[in-house]
Amino acid sequence: MRRQADVIVVDWGASFLRAYLCFDNGGELEVIEQVLGPGAAKVSQQFEAALNSVIGHWSAQYGALPVLMSGHIGSSLGWHETPYISCPVPPLEVTKELFEFESNGHSIFVVPGVSCEEPDGHADVMRGEETHVLGWLTMDDSHRRGKHLLCLPGTHTKWVLVEEGEIKVFKTAITGELFDLLCHHSVLIQQQQSEIDIRAFEQGAKLTLESELGQFVHGLFSVRTLQVQGKLDADHAKSYLSGLLIGSDVRAALMAPQWRIDELASISLIGSHPLCELFSQTLKMKGITVHSTQEKETCLRGFSAIYRKVFKSAA
Amino acid sequence: MRRQADVIVVDWGASFLRAYLCFDNGGELEVIEQVLGPGAAKVSQQFEAALNSVIGHWSAQYGALPVLMSGHIGSSLGWHETPYISCPVPPLEVTKELFEFESNGHSIFVVPGVSCEEPDGHADVMRGEETHVLGWLTMDDSHRRGKHLLCLPGTHTKWVLVEEGEIKVFKTAITGELFDLLCHHSVLIQQQQSEIDIRAFEQGAKLTLESELGQFVHGLFSVRTLQVQGKLDADHAKSYLSGLLIGSDVRAALMAPQWRIDELASISLIGSHPLCELFSQTLKMKGITVHSTQEKETCLRGFSAIYRKVFKSAA
Repeated sequence: MRRQADVIVVDWGASFLRAYLCFDNGGELEVIEQVLGPGAAKVSQQFEAALNSVIGHWSAQYGALPVLMSGHIGSSLGWHETPYISCPVPPLEVTKELFEFESNGHSIFVVPGVSCEEPDGHADVMRGEETHVLGWLTMDDSHRRGKHLLCLPGTHTKWVLVEEGEIKVFKTAITGELFDLLCHHSVLIQQQQSEIDIRAFEQGAKLTLESELGQFVHGLFSVRTLQVQGKLDADHAKSYLSGLLIGSDVRAALMAPQWRIDELASISLIGSHPLCELFSQTLKMKGITVHSTQEKETCLRGFSAIYRKVFKSAA
Repeated sequence: MRRQADVIVVDWGASFLRAYLCFDNGGELEVIEQVLGPGAAKVSQQFEAALNSVIGHWSAQYGALPVLMSGHIGSSLGWHETPYISCPVPPLEVTKELFEFESNGHSIFVVPGVSCEEPDGHADVMRGEETHVLGWLTMDDSHRRGKHLLCLPGTHTKWVLVEEGEIKVFKTAITGELFDLLCHHSVLIQQQQSEIDIRAFEQGAKLTLESELGQFVHGLFSVRTLQVQGKLDADHAKSYLSGLLIGSDVRAALMAPQWRIDELASISLIGSHPLCELFSQTLKMKGITVHSTQEKETCLRGFSAIYRKVFKSAA
């Protein structure tokens, strides 16, 4: 018997599109099929065509299902710009500001982003991560009580302070984007090794975790000097650079004036396996233990909550 | 009457080649003609062909003059790798380790680089800047006495501590390379404005000059958030980013444990006009006055000293 599908949910970031065809079983959305596609920054503004090429076979089989979307796709550089909702805010509030439009017969709902602004003028924005935070909050009652720091590594790492079920404040580091740029276009890396060498990674992380004030731009050149000195193999340079960047990111998060690290109930990592492992390793070097959750789980739980609120709360 | 030429000197960095046809008048070398060419990182290992295309017309007119070269061309990624001489060292010592070879009948002499290594394992390398430092030292007797900090902005900014005529220690920041990468390949910059807007520049410099520990990787994202908030024009984003990077570079130099800023006789900038002006502006924001010298002058003075030592000291 062919199973009916109820909704398509799409986590469409700058680097990747992740689409899930889902069945509503009355609890969390259940994934029937999933597809990976190009990120919003990579489709040269051809968003409709990109989406069709990814979900077209589902449309053919199940008709014009509603589509829930979050991420970079709703930014000023995306398909349809959605507003930001301001912190502090319980992330389910995004359902009040969904941007709805039609495409190829599908009703498309884009989740708004979240912004924060502090008295000192520090401001930040996120798109997509609010859906993961929402999903993470539904995982356990304890997540909706007390203070927690979430870290979502990726092209742009987000550090998000959650308190009593609300997003209070957050910070972005462009660690992943910098790593990519420096690997492919800089004088620092001459060889593209694929595997991470954990010793070289830790050597790099140690430098920035323990560095003096603001030594980051100066520290980067050590990728080159260590190779010149014969203290770093060319094929481990990428791992060392990854350590430098993640160490710098983690150090800044641990020293951030936006939260006090000693007051937090926990640090939770949300992301894909190898990258989370490197952040986890770096946090461990500072004696901090973390809980890791796969991004697929938080994504689907977040969209489940949005779906239920939008389509089922009136029922 | 056709004037005889005596030597060609070439400052061949990663980004640019600057060649000068010179006449020995018994004092400083006198430039007859100068040519700009492609940097060593841009000629795909075709160094001999690149040099010939730049100096070929001089060879045709004056024969196979000796050629003095310094810079990236002598690195492991260059034409012929030369050694590093270790700090502390008076830069004229480079004449003891010149690497000599023949190319198209020319005798070519490549100046070695300089390296430094400290007890804590901090190490660094330079190639080309040692020639400028040598030239700067010859400009005034006072330069050869006391402690001075030199700043040579460029693709890789060098901060060089000179004491009693010796290079003691130095630090590299890849500020210029990062700026180039972020301008052309990152999500931060969408518009390529050509003029620097000094207000946006100072806004960026202020953030990193006054930032908390290690906030650099986090601070970079403000290029985007300020645009999203309407607090930064898209066509001023590049100026703001330049300020962020130069502010971070200057702050790290002012806090460097390798020297005490309050013990220095002066800070001297060596470079090209617009870039030196931005570093000078940033140092002024911290109440520091600087002396600026054009890189052409320090380059020619440095090569003059090397030329005289190698070709004239036995005479």
